[in-house]
Amino acid sequence: MIERIAILGTGLLGTSVGLALRASGFRGDLTGWNRSAEGGQAALSMGAVDSLVADPLQAARESQVTVLAVPIYATLDLMEKLSAILGPEHLVTDVGSTKAQITAAAGRLFNTPERAAFLPGHPMAGKERGGASLGDANLFRNAVWLFTDDPAWQRSPCSAALVTGWRDLVVAMGSKIIDLDPARHDELVAWVSHLPQFVATALSALLQEEVGDAPELKDVGGRALREMTRLGASPYSMWRDIAYTNTEAVQATLFALEQRLATLRENLRTPVLRDEFEQANRFRRE
Amino acid sequence: MIERIAILGTGLLGTSVGLALRASGFRGDLTGWNRSAEGGQAALSMGAVDSLVADPLQAARESQVTVLAVPIYATLDLMEKLSAILGPEHLVTDVGSTKAQITAAAGRLFNTPERAAFLPGHPMAGKERGGASLGDANLFRNAVWLFTDDPAWQRSPCSAALVTGWRDLVVAMGSKIIDLDPARHDELVAWVSHLPQFVATALSALLQEEVGDAPELKDVGGRALREMTRLGASPYSMWRDIAYTNTEAVQATLFALEQRLATLRENLRTPVLRDEFEQANRFRRE
Repeated sequence: MIERIAILGTGLLGTSVGLALRASGFRGDLTGWNRSAEGGQAALSMGAVDSLVADPLQAARESQVTVLAVPIYATLDLMEKLSAILGPEHLVTDVGSTKAQITAAAGRLFNTPERAAFLPGHPMAGKERGGASLGDANLFRNAVWLFTDDPAWQRSPCSAALVTGWRDLVVAMGSKIIDLDPARHDELVAWVSHLPQFVATALSALLQEEVGDAPELKDVGGRALREMTRLGASPYSMWRDIAYTNTEAVQATLFALEQRLATLRENLRTPVLRDEFEQANRFRRE
Repeated sequence: MIERIAILGTGLLGTSVGLALRASGFRGDLTGWNRSAEGGQAALSMGAVDSLVADPLQAARESQVTVLAVPIYATLDLMEKLSAILGPEHLVTDVGSTKAQITAAAGRLFNTPERAAFLPGHPMAGKERGGASLGDANLFRNAVWLFTDDPAWQRSPCSAALVTGWRDLVVAMGSKIIDLDPARHDELVAWVSHLPQFVATALSALLQEEVGDAPELKDVGGRALREMTRLGASPYSMWRDIAYTNTEAVQATLFALEQRLATLRENLRTPVLRDEFEQANRFRRE
């Protein structure tokens, strides 16, 4: 039923969506747009899209489903423009890492019977580096794909059917869907995604200052150190909008971890350390 | 030249030493002792040792090289006992994770021409769980094996030759040797090994409290969360002696990270965040 999809932004996620759709058996048209020509060409040459267009709005108008795979502020900007030109025969969805602002914009700009539908989405998959060339048809396999849809939204029958169709394609790409309230989404991903990233960044930056001048000694840490700092390679450009749009939730998680580390530091020789290890063991066991 | 080795403690490291020695072509005798009979039997059945003995001191007396692969306080205890019964035809070495106290004891109890030699060692390899059954002939391949030998020690020609022989066996097991001053060793491993462990423990314990009641949502974090919390499975029993014998260095690293996280938390919307990501990127690049 969905036969024409536009992917706006052919970075790691957009390219992976195109490749995963093809791998799952999707046979319709895939049109791509990217801010930089190189990224678009890379996605085209990998077969993630069939064609490239110069105008993202034109691509959206000619498709049934438009997937926004650009940073969060660029997503919000495109949402404004798309709501003005699309109608109830269209669905727009996204892959942004924070959902409160995007879901609020979706309620304001989309999701009435006269307007296009917007389904806020967030696949919990990625790599520590971006770019079309890292695109991967299996990126979403066994991953969770979160949606923060609002059951109160009134959609046209056509765009409601497209929402169902897109959810089916997400399952076909190998993901497990979980529906969440957008505020709960942002709080949850602050704990399980943003906090681990910012900890890895702070740890890597600290170690660069403390042992960065002894490169052969980095080997000393072995697998454990490599794992705990792998996310240190993540670029600022991928995380800036997340820090800006989920600031309070991230601050709360960082503050909680600071307190936890201080308690551990003050109890290296007391039974509190044992309790802390046992609590951590439970997290990995359950 | 080394033909008889005793491995005291057949947990993960002791068993792996036996298996790695065999895999590297060592054809001499391997005798094992373990505090619990089960751990010893497991190592024997895996071929990590040829025989088990009930008395660790007897095993050491009948071997040229004794490898202490027990927790740090147990190592210090065995060092006292072994120094009284071994002579200059013996070498004792260890695999303990902190080296200041063990190296000080080695200077006090060993390493004169009339006494056995002691070579303080620390292979930077392990797993988040212990036990003979996880023993692995490849555990030390491409790992760094640290020694905190003291060039001022005066050894008998025989035990000096055993030191050279053991270093050769470590290289044969696939490790790269780095020699360090013991105080520098403990400071360095606090940064690259102990800090990552305690961060993973604190993060896992915190997440257990915050999202532990929503088990399906743990999947949401994906690979990044799994990596950042893998070490959360490490048991207290493996880390208690490290916390006790490297307390000040670990406290300094924890305090530094707390401050780093606080700075990051206060700068989620300032250019400081970009600087922090770039500093972290350098650690992973260099």
